[in-house]
Amino acid sequence: MAKAISGPEFFIGKGDDALISFGSGQPDMPPPAEAFDILRTYSSFKYGLIQGEEALRVALVPQYPNAKPEHFVITNGASEAIDLVLRVIAEKADVPTQSRKVLLPRPYYYSYPFNVRYAGMAPVFYDLEKGKIHLDTFSEMLKECCAVVINSPSNPTGTVQEVETLKKIEKLCADKNIWVISDEVYKDIIYVRENYLLQGPRVVTINSFSKTYAMCGLRVGYVYSQNEELITKIIEMKTHTAMNTSIVSQMMAQAALSAPASYIAHNLDTWKSRRDLMYEGMKDLDLDLWNPEGAFYVLPKFKNSSEVVNDLYYKYQVITYDGAWFGAPERVRFSYALDASKITEGLRRLKEFLGKEYAGY
Amino acid sequence: MAKAISGPEFFIGKGDDALISFGSGQPDMPPPAEAFDILRTYSSFKYGLIQGEEALRVALVPQYPNAKPEHFVITNGASEAIDLVLRVIAEKADVPTQSRKVLLPRPYYYSYPFNVRYAGMAPVFYDLEKGKIHLDTFSEMLKECCAVVINSPSNPTGTVQEVETLKKIEKLCADKNIWVISDEVYKDIIYVRENYLLQGPRVVTINSFSKTYAMCGLRVGYVYSQNEELITKIIEMKTHTAMNTSIVSQMMAQAALSAPASYIAHNLDTWKSRRDLMYEGMKDLDLDLWNPEGAFYVLPKFKNSSEVVNDLYYKYQVITYDGAWFGAPERVRFSYALDASKITEGLRRLKEFLGKEYAGY
Repeated sequence: MAKAISGPEFFIGKGDDALISFGSGQPDMPPPAEAFDILRTYSSFKYGLIQGEEALRVALVPQYPNAKPEHFVITNGASEAIDLVLRVIAEKADVPTQSRKVLLPRPYYYSYPFNVRYAGMAPVFYDLEKGKIHLDTFSEMLKECCAVVINSPSNPTGTVQEVETLKKIEKLCADKNIWVISDEVYKDIIYVRENYLLQGPRVVTINSFSKTYAMCGLRVGYVYSQNEELITKIIEMKTHTAMNTSIVSQMMAQAALSAPASYIAHNLDTWKSRRDLMYEGMKDLDLDLWNPEGAFYVLPKFKNSSEVVNDLYYKYQVITYDGAWFGAPERVRFSYALDASKITEGLRRLKEFLGKEYAGY
Repeated sequence: MAKAISGPEFFIGKGDDALISFGSGQPDMPPPAEAFDILRTYSSFKYGLIQGEEALRVALVPQYPNAKPEHFVITNGASEAIDLVLRVIAEKADVPTQSRKVLLPRPYYYSYPFNVRYAGMAPVFYDLEKGKIHLDTFSEMLKECCAVVINSPSNPTGTVQEVETLKKIEKLCADKNIWVISDEVYKDIIYVRENYLLQGPRVVTINSFSKTYAMCGLRVGYVYSQNEELITKIIEMKTHTAMNTSIVSQMMAQAALSAPASYIAHNLDTWKSRRDLMYEGMKDLDLDLWNPEGAFYVLPKFKNSSEVVNDLYYKYQVITYDGAWFGAPERVRFSYALDASKITEGLRRLKEFLGKEYAGY
C-alpha cells in the first residue's frame, strides 16, 4: 500500500526528474551573484554581535521609514524571528489583564499554531473570506488576545490585504495595546501595489532574505521593531538560545542587498507571468479559486483534499500540499515556484486527473 | 564615572590593541583551511533537511560508538541544541510523577539557568567541589529532577570529571529514568585523558564545531542521542522554530571534519602550553586555583570579584569575567584563548594590580 502523506515533510528530498512539484514554497531562481562572490575571499570565523552584523543592519535601514540599525535583530530565518518574538511576548504577557492567546489568520502558514503553542500560549483563529480579512470577525476575536499575526501577502492564500483594512488594524491594536506580529516575508512579491508596512508602538515586522533573494537554505531573517524594550528582550533571549546568526550567511545577505534593483524587478516579472499561467490554466479547468495578488501560491477548492494530494502524487507524479495542513481542509495549495514548461506539464496532468480520477470521487 | 560591567556582553566589540582579553571563550586560532576552501566554488541556496545534511551526519558517525546518521540533529551551535533539548523534555515532562526541575552544576556555563527557565522549567544546582562532582550531593539533589546537565570538560572550571564518577551518574540516571544532557563541547581539548562519552537510554550529547574547529561565528552544533523518540521530537520542533541550520555553515563544518588529525593535535599542544604558562604564572602570584584538565579557562579565587573585574578593565586594560556570572561569586574567570606573549603581558599587569590595587581591598 502507498505510504500515507502526512505533511509537507513527506515530500522533502523527493526530486525525481519525472516529478512536477507544486509543493515547496521556495524560489527556484538563484540568489544574486553578489551573494556568492563574497565567498571567494571569505575568512571570518569568530562570534559576531548577537543582534546581527552592524553593516547588514545599516544596509536594511533604507527599507523602513525612520528606522535605525538598532531596530533590527538578524535571525536564523523568519522562523527563529517568529519563535523569539512569541517567546518574549509570552514572558511579558504574565499580567492578569492580558490573556495568553494569540490571534492567527485561517488559512495560516502551517508553523504558526506550533509556534504559539511552543511559546506556551494558545492560538485562536480569525477566518479569512476568500483570503481577505473581515474586520468584524477580526475585532470580535481580538478582544481576548495579547497578540495578533498578520500575513500579507499570505502563504497559503496568495492574497494581499487592503491598505484600508491594515490601517484599521493598526488603530484597533494600538488602542488595545495588542502586539501586532506582521509577517511580511513576501513583501517584494506583490502584483497589485507596493507593500504597505504595518506600523505602531507594538508592531513587530518579520522579514527574511529567503523569498526576495532566494536564500532559503542560508537562513537569514530578521525582526524589525521600533519598540526598543522588545528588541532588547529578543537579543537577551537569543544570547542564550542561539547566539549570532551564521556570520557567513549574514555576509551573503548583505552582499545580496547590494545587487542592482533589476534583480528584484526581473524576478517579479517572472513570478507574475507564472501567476498568470497558473491562474488562467486553472480557470480553464473550471477550478474555483481567486487570482493571487502576491507570494506564489494558488489555493483552489477541492473536495476530499487529502485524496487529491494522494492521487496526484502516486498516480500523476505531481506534488501538491493539502489545504488541511494550513487550516483549509477543502482546498489544495499549489506553489508556482517552478518554470513555465513544468507548470504547463503539471496543468496537463491535473486536467487528466480531473477527467479520470476526480470525476469519480 | 566608569560604566558598570554587568555581564560578558559588556565586552563585545571591545578589541583595542592595548587591551589584553582573558574574556571571550572562543579559540583565536583559525579553522582548518579545508573549511574555507569549499567556499571558492560554493553555490547552494535551497532548503536542506531539518535534521541536517546527510553527508555531515555520516561524517560524524565515526566519533560515536554504534552511532547512525539518524541519531544526529545539526543545530545553530550548541546553544540551539540545548534550547531544543530542554524544550522537548519540558513538553514530555508533563506527567504527574516527574517534576519540571533540571539539575545544573555550579559553577555553570552562564546560559544554562536561562535555558532551563526559557523552557518553562526551574533550575536547581549541585555544587562542585574544586570543580569536581561530589556524588552524595549530586544524588541527593537528583531526586526531584526530570533532567540533569553534565559539562565535562567544564566552562568555567576547566575540570574534567573522573570516569568512575561519570559511570555512576550513568547508572543513577538510567535507574531513575532521568534525562542526562551531556554538554561535551570541549571533548577535544582535554589534557589528562581521552574524552569519556556518557551513554545510556536517556543520554543526550551536545556538541559543536565551535571549540574543536574554531568555528564559533559559523554556528554549527549538534545533538546526538540513541533515543529515537527524542530525536524525532527535536526535528519536529526545529521544523517550526528555525528550519535547517545554515547550509553553507554545514558545508564548512563537513569540510573541517576532513582536515588531517594533526589539526586537532597541534591545537591541543598549543592549548596545553598556554595552560601551563597560565597556571604556573598564577601560582607564582600566589593565587588560589586548580590546574585545568580541559577547556581553556582558569578560575582563581578573589575577594570582591566584581571590583577586581572593574579595576582590571578600567585601570589595567585587562578583560576578565566575574565568577558571579557563572555562579561562582568568589572567583574570576580567565580564558587563555590568546597567544603566549599576550598571556605573559596580561600576567605582568595582573601582578601589578595585585601589588597596588588588590592589596588595599
